[in-house]
Amino acid sequence: MAVKWWGWGDPDKTYDLTHRPAAWPYLQAKLGVRDEVQRSPVALDDIQLPSSRLDAAVLEALTEVGCSTRGQDRISHAYGKSYRDLVRVRAGHVPNPPDAVVFPTNEAQVEAVLALAARHGFAVIPFGGGTSVVGGLEMPADRAERPFVSLDLARMSALIEVDPVSMTATAEAGIMGPRLEELLQAQGVTLGHYPQSFEYSTLGGWVATRSAGQQSTRYGKIESMVVGLRILTPAGVLETRPVPAASQGPDLNQVAIGSEGLLGVITRVTFKVHARPPRQDYRALVFPGWAQGQAALRAIMQSDRRPATLRLSDQAETRALFKLREASKPSAWKAWGQKAFGWYLSRMRDVHMEDACLLIMGFEGDPEQVDQDRDWCVSLCELQRGVSLGHAIADRWYASRFDLPYLRDTMLDRGVMVDTLETSGLWANVPAIYEAVIKALEGAISADGLDPLVFCHVSHPYAAGASLYFTFAARQQLGQELEQWARYKRAATDALLAAGGSLSHHHGVGIDHAPWAREVLGDQGLAWIKGVKAAADPDDIMGPGRIIGS
Amino acid sequence: MAVKWWGWGDPDKTYDLTHRPAAWPYLQAKLGVRDEVQRSPVALDDIQLPSSRLDAAVLEALTEVGCSTRGQDRISHAYGKSYRDLVRVRAGHVPNPPDAVVFPTNEAQVEAVLALAARHGFAVIPFGGGTSVVGGLEMPADRAERPFVSLDLARMSALIEVDPVSMTATAEAGIMGPRLEELLQAQGVTLGHYPQSFEYSTLGGWVATRSAGQQSTRYGKIESMVVGLRILTPAGVLETRPVPAASQGPDLNQVAIGSEGLLGVITRVTFKVHARPPRQDYRALVFPGWAQGQAALRAIMQSDRRPATLRLSDQAETRALFKLREASKPSAWKAWGQKAFGWYLSRMRDVHMEDACLLIMGFEGDPEQVDQDRDWCVSLCELQRGVSLGHAIADRWYASRFDLPYLRDTMLDRGVMVDTLETSGLWANVPAIYEAVIKALEGAISADGLDPLVFCHVSHPYAAGASLYFTFAARQQLGQELEQWARYKRAATDALLAAGGSLSHHHGVGIDHAPWAREVLGDQGLAWIKGVKAAADPDDIMGPGRIIGS
Repeated sequence: MAVKWWGWGDPDKTYDLTHRPAAWPYLQAKLGVRDEVQRSPVALDDIQLPSSRLDAAVLEALTEVGCSTRGQDRISHAYGKSYRDLVRVRAGHVPNPPDAVVFPTNEAQVEAVLALAARHGFAVIPFGGGTSVVGGLEMPADRAERPFVSLDLARMSALIEVDPVSMTATAEAGIMGPRLEELLQAQGVTLGHYPQSFEYSTLGGWVATRSAGQQSTRYGKIESMVVGLRILTPAGVLETRPVPAASQGPDLNQVAIGSEGLLGVITRVTFKVHARPPRQDYRALVFPGWAQGQAALRAIMQSDRRPATLRLSDQAETRALFKLREASKPSAWKAWGQKAFGWYLSRMRDVHMEDACLLIMGFEGDPEQVDQDRDWCVSLCELQRGVSLGHAIADRWYASRFDLPYLRDTMLDRGVMVDTLETSGLWANVPAIYEAVIKALEGAISADGLDPLVFCHVSHPYAAGASLYFTFAARQQLGQELEQWARYKRAATDALLAAGGSLSHHHGVGIDHAPWAREVLGDQGLAWIKGVKAAADPDDIMGPGRIIGS
Repeated sequence: MAVKWWGWGDPDKTYDLTHRPAAWPYLQAKLGVRDEVQRSPVALDDIQLPSSRLDAAVLEALTEVGCSTRGQDRISHAYGKSYRDLVRVRAGHVPNPPDAVVFPTNEAQVEAVLALAARHGFAVIPFGGGTSVVGGLEMPADRAERPFVSLDLARMSALIEVDPVSMTATAEAGIMGPRLEELLQAQGVTLGHYPQSFEYSTLGGWVATRSAGQQSTRYGKIESMVVGLRILTPAGVLETRPVPAASQGPDLNQVAIGSEGLLGVITRVTFKVHARPPRQDYRALVFPGWAQGQAALRAIMQSDRRPATLRLSDQAETRALFKLREASKPSAWKAWGQKAFGWYLSRMRDVHMEDACLLIMGFEGDPEQVDQDRDWCVSLCELQRGVSLGHAIADRWYASRFDLPYLRDTMLDRGVMVDTLETSGLWANVPAIYEAVIKALEGAISADGLDPLVFCHVSHPYAAGASLYFTFAARQQLGQELEQWARYKRAATDALLAAGGSLSHHHGVGIDHAPWAREVLGDQGLAWIKGVKAAADPDDIMGPGRIIGS
């Protein structure tokens, strides 16, 4: 599947602002963009790559596995899709791409690559869909001299088995989201895992990074879907026995899950599947404020009812989402109706759109259960003065839910930095984490003399707490983009950890978050992970520097 | 709290067969007991203990922590409550008790004990409620020469905090089940964790062994309840950050959970709590056979409805449970009603009590949800020809659900071996695991020329599979009790592993299951656990030999 080497997703697709007349004027005003800039990625052919450091004998041995040293393959495997990655690749700054990209077709070939790595001293970085946003695919700068190959699992992408009795399925790790769902749904089942990267990410990548999908409230995060897996480490294979639950020591699945390529190559996963839900019901609500919306989410998650999706935007994100709407020419009647509804909201329900917080709430399952759960959850929202807006907004969100990453490319073309970061915390800590991160980002951007745009949504609520997903934007400081970004990232990460948040809820640690790993995991936590690493990968072949740093 | 040193639970309580007139004749006939025997535990004072191997200076240092070398303390900390343990302790066979029992009151004292252990070379085995049934509390025979202390957490038993916003609570690990629930329920919440050992086991013990409660279908196994914990290892403390979910590398909670004292001492746990359920509804049903009952459980667990308890007995267990009923003198009307109902079951519903399988199905939660879920689940049962028996049998089960362990003492008094073992597997494997274990146990017991009584129930069903809990009984081969038991245990464990089961669903590995750990975890799995062990406990102080063997 062709993907942009310099941006997100389908090369033929852009996030077009021309159909969204309010968007750019809004962003211009918010970000203080006066001088329009137009910046384009360098041409692929203009990127100067260092030549591969692997010697001819090694490359020949790798060729038996399927190996490329073509420039485009090395470039497209050099980075993930973070803001930092895109700034570098668009500028043609690729000083340390993989020395080769290998495409094994089976486990024996993966083992052959690991054996060659042990013998010749190069490192191996597993590659799924290439959508990491935490530096999960590159060699850390302090190990730049080490040759390495990117091990792309694209050719290990078979659905091996669906077990309709146990409602589990087994697939090779390299299978992409759409293909996996296509094959599963042809057999009447679904995994139900739809991260925003769904179209371009893989089963193995989800497992390696503890991914979360947009319906996680119903289907769980990926770590709760896995019942067994195979991971090939340099020291041998670990295959966990697929059972629904067990008491046989530490849970080794939960060590391999989230290992981010540090321990080995996840080649095969057995996971729970579900009957395709006969009914989906997605609707939007507005709350008079952020606190009320959070209270409703908490009440729902601490009840026995279970939506599939709960996504609550703060005031600033709600305003931004409405500005990003596509143009439509409402009929005079519809325009009048919208106006009347706005009057009703503000006069009768005391919900003022400028302070309102938008909730997308979705249900999936058997029709009777969906209806009961929805009515119950709507009631809990109404107790917090939430007002239903019906299906239209939610259905638009659902239809375009994988599109937002494209907007970043459009912004980069115009000299605007946009990045996201996320965390999670107990409900008791959520308000403080929220305040701390907003303040840290706005403060750091303002300190650069720039106008900040920072907003947030709750994307994955639980009974005990929630994840918070922040977006921050500012004009780029041209020529200083990475330093600029690093300041904001540092300020936000320091702030969220100090307020009790996790280092990440579903993006992972990678290289980017590794500097904070000791703070959040502690000396013992790092020592435990290093202990497993020493057992699985005594020669330090796998994924140098991720999670545990250098 | 006083507990029997030679048996289960409350010293003043026995499982009295005189009120159960059908029980003993049934067991006599089943087990071929012709010559009644009467066997009693030795007197406590008659047990000869080796003297403590710790020198005076060490004992003096331990005394500052709170330390006992009294015979009764050493005996009551020498074993858990497995059949093997009770056979030994009743015979006065306690050749290797702890050299001292320490009772720290705080973490500093735990650290002091670990530091002394490192300095003086003795080992430390953590002790919660002492109800291990897998040899979790003793020194393995091949390390018998190593001095060790039993570290009893009974004095670290405070409920530290209830967070009503996040619906979490934090408690010290040594708190016992009843006290924990008493304190939580006083604040309107519950943990909802009721293992059969509930009355005599601790929070820390549950976490260390991956315990499962009788309402696990609603509240989860203990590993899904924990949001954070503290574990003191010889190399330092690991405190995991309490968050609802995260993506920050391997899940270290899930390494500490199930570590069974191998890595360190769990001192503090933060866990989810739930509002006390306003309604409980427990009822019994019968199915015409085992396959129909399993099909109903699978249908329920793969639906969106969620009971609290699902406990399905096979035919043999159903028969045995009815034989264990207390005597009652039904009125003539009631007797006639029972007879008529039996006629209705067999003639109209084709359910014959001699082949019937009993299901206990319980619901907890808000009344509306309980009613809806119950009606739905009863319908799914009816599709499998299940027939509701109403509340009485289920309420009796509920009221006496912690009593069954007492029966083993009564059986031991009469020269009868009774033990249980459990496993878990995917639904696709459940029938094969069941058949294999029944056949292995019946075969091994018959090969000794004895009459076997073997039965089973599904105690913890999941969407993907279930746990199977087996009970096996036979006449004791007097003087050969341990060898006899070991043959049956070995046959059953070999069989369940070969059929795809887990080594244990909720009892753990301990010493007893460690010989099979390599088969089920693989070389890499063991190597990973040893890697963590080397990081946490480089001098091998903690829990020698459990899980990973020697």
